[in-house]
Amino acid sequence: MLPTIELTVPAAILGSGTIVGPKEAQGPLGESFDLSLQDTLANQSSWEKAEQHLMQTAIRLALEQARIQAENIDVLIAGDLLNQIITSSFCARGLGIPFLGIYGACSSFTEGLAIGGLLLQNESVNHVLCATSSHNSTAERQYRYPTEYGGQLPPTAQFTVTGAGAAVLGKRAKAGPHLTRITLGRVIDLGVTNPFEMGAAMAPAAADTLYRHFQDTGLEPDYYDIILTGDLARVGKKILIDLMQNKGVNLSGNYEDCGVLIYDTSQKVNAGGSGCACSAVVVLGHMLKELYKGSIKRLLVAATGALMSPTSYQQGESIPGIAHAVAIEWIDGGIGNG
Amino acid sequence: MLPTIELTVPAAILGSGTIVGPKEAQGPLGESFDLSLQDTLANQSSWEKAEQHLMQTAIRLALEQARIQAENIDVLIAGDLLNQIITSSFCARGLGIPFLGIYGACSSFTEGLAIGGLLLQNESVNHVLCATSSHNSTAERQYRYPTEYGGQLPPTAQFTVTGAGAAVLGKRAKAGPHLTRITLGRVIDLGVTNPFEMGAAMAPAAADTLYRHFQDTGLEPDYYDIILTGDLARVGKKILIDLMQNKGVNLSGNYEDCGVLIYDTSQKVNAGGSGCACSAVVVLGHMLKELYKGSIKRLLVAATGALMSPTSYQQGESIPGIAHAVAIEWIDGGIGNG
Repeated sequence: MLPTIELTVPAAILGSGTIVGPKEAQGPLGESFDLSLQDTLANQSSWEKAEQHLMQTAIRLALEQARIQAENIDVLIAGDLLNQIITSSFCARGLGIPFLGIYGACSSFTEGLAIGGLLLQNESVNHVLCATSSHNSTAERQYRYPTEYGGQLPPTAQFTVTGAGAAVLGKRAKAGPHLTRITLGRVIDLGVTNPFEMGAAMAPAAADTLYRHFQDTGLEPDYYDIILTGDLARVGKKILIDLMQNKGVNLSGNYEDCGVLIYDTSQKVNAGGSGCACSAVVVLGHMLKELYKGSIKRLLVAATGALMSPTSYQQGESIPGIAHAVAIEWIDGGIGNG
Repeated sequence: MLPTIELTVPAAILGSGTIVGPKEAQGPLGESFDLSLQDTLANQSSWEKAEQHLMQTAIRLALEQARIQAENIDVLIAGDLLNQIITSSFCARGLGIPFLGIYGACSSFTEGLAIGGLLLQNESVNHVLCATSSHNSTAERQYRYPTEYGGQLPPTAQFTVTGAGAAVLGKRAKAGPHLTRITLGRVIDLGVTNPFEMGAAMAPAAADTLYRHFQDTGLEPDYYDIILTGDLARVGKKILIDLMQNKGVNLSGNYEDCGVLIYDTSQKVNAGGSGCACSAVVVLGHMLKELYKGSIKRLLVAATGALMSPTSYQQGESIPGIAHAVAIEWIDGGIGNG
C-alpha cells in the first residue's frame, strides 16, 4: 500500500482562481474570494449552467494569475458532484486540452491536486490545471430535495457551497506555495446510513488518512501551522478530534474544517458547509493568501468525500467516506525547473 | 498541450481479470473471458449489486493472476457509468487500499490505464490496480429507459456490455505486455444531440486522439498490428474511418472496434456494444491472449466516452466525446525493475 509520497519535484501553485455564491460572499471569508455572484443563477438558464459558469470563471482566473494560456496547459484534471461530472466535462469542452475526469465527491479537490502533483513528476508534464465546483441548488436537488421544496433539515445536515476553485500547478522555481506531500485516501465505512449526517460518515476516513500521514512521515501535527479537513462541518469535526485522540494524536491545537470556516453560525447552514467547492475556495482563496502574507507557512489539507449515491442510499447501503491529504508549504524558491 | 508520452518505464500488465454477462459469453469472443454469469442478476438483490459483484470478481482474478495481495497494491484507479461511480467506490471499500475514482464514461478503461501508467513513473509507486465495469440493466435505466419497459431502439443505438475488467500494472522486468505510449484525449463536440447515436458523437474525439498519436510519434498506423476503438460500434466506426481518411490517415487495414467485435450481428444489439466494460473485456480478455499467443505484438487502444448526462441532454446540450489512447506492446523483458 502506497505510503505518503514526498514529491521529488514539489508542485508549485502558479496561479489560482475562486468564485462563490452570494451566501459564501457574506460569510467570514467573503473578502478572500476573487469573485462572487449576485444570485446563484448567474444569468444562466439553469443552475447546472450556472455551475459551469462558476468553474469556467475559476479556470479563467487561475490561468490569468499564472500568466499562462490554456493551450500551454498539459492536462485539465477536474471533478464535481453532478451525475457524470457534467460541469467538468462541459468546461473541458471549451478548453481544447487533454482532460482527465475524476470523481471523489467532496474530496475531488485534493484528489485532483494529488493526481496533478504526481503527474508533474513525469518529465514531459509541465503544467496541470485542477478545477472543482459545487452549487447548492444543483447538488441539493440531485442528492436530497430540490431547494424549491423547502424541506426541513436536521441540525446535522450541511449546506452545499456554491462556488468553484481552480489552480495551475507547475515546476517553476520561484518562491511560493508548493504541494510537497501527498497521502492518498482509502475508502472507510463505519456504517452511517443517514445522508443528513455526512460529517459523521466522512470523519473516520479523514482520521485514517491523517493518522497514516503522521505515521508515514514521522511529523507531529504541530509541524503544520494549520491542518484542514474539507467538509466535516461542526458534527464531523468533533468526531475527528475524538477519533484522533483515541489514536494518540492531538489535533486540538491547530485543526480547522473548511465547512466550519466558510459560514457564520448565524447563516442558517446547520452543521456547516459541504461540497467540492468548500475546501477548494477556502484553500485557494483564503489559505493561499495567508501563505503569501506569511501568517502561515505549512498547511495540510484533507478534503473529505462521501461516496454514496441516491440509488445506493435507497438500496439500503451505508455511506463510504474518503479523504485525500495534500501538504501545501511555502518554499523560498530554487527547487524544480521550467 | 501534452503530446503523446513515451513511458520511460513501460508499465507491465502483471495480471488481468475479465467477467461478462450471458449475452457477451455467447458472442464471438465468449471463449476468451475468464468467467461469465448465468444471468445478469448474479444472485444479487439488485443490478447495481450485480455490477459490484462483476468488478469485485474481475479484481480478484487480476490479483490472483498477478500473484499479488490487495494490500501490496499501491492504489486502485477505478470508474464506471453509475452516478457517483458507486460500483467503483463500493468495491474500493472492501479492499482497504488508496483509491482514485475516475469518470470518463466508456473511456474510463484507458483513462485508468493512462493514469496508472503515469503514476508508475513515480519511484514510490510500484503496483497499480485498474478496474472498470458496466451493466446493461443499470446503465440503460439510468441513461435511457429501464430494460423492463421494452422501449424500441433505433438501429444506431448500442447495447451496453455487462461485464468488468481489471488489470494489475507494475514495473516487473519479465517478458509480457506493457503500456508503452499514452495519448490523453481532449473533449470534442461536433453537436450530436441524439443519445441513440453515441458512435457518431464519439467518433470525432477518437479521430482527434488517434491523429495526434500518429502526428506526435511519427508512427504509421501499420506500426500497430491492430488499432482498436472502444465502443464506436458499426455506425461510429465508419465515421471514424472517413474522418481519418479526410486527415490523410488510412485506418482501413488494421482497425477494429471493440463494440463491433464483442457481439455477433445476430444478437440484436443494433449498432453494437458500448459501456466501460466493452473495451476492458475485449482488450484484457481477448487481445491480451493474442499478445501472449504471439499472433499480435503491438496494439493501440482508444477507449471512447460520451460525456453527457440525462440532465444535460434534457437541457438541450449536445454530447461531448473523449478518447484516451494507450499502446500495449509485447516486450521481451529486461526493462524496469521491482
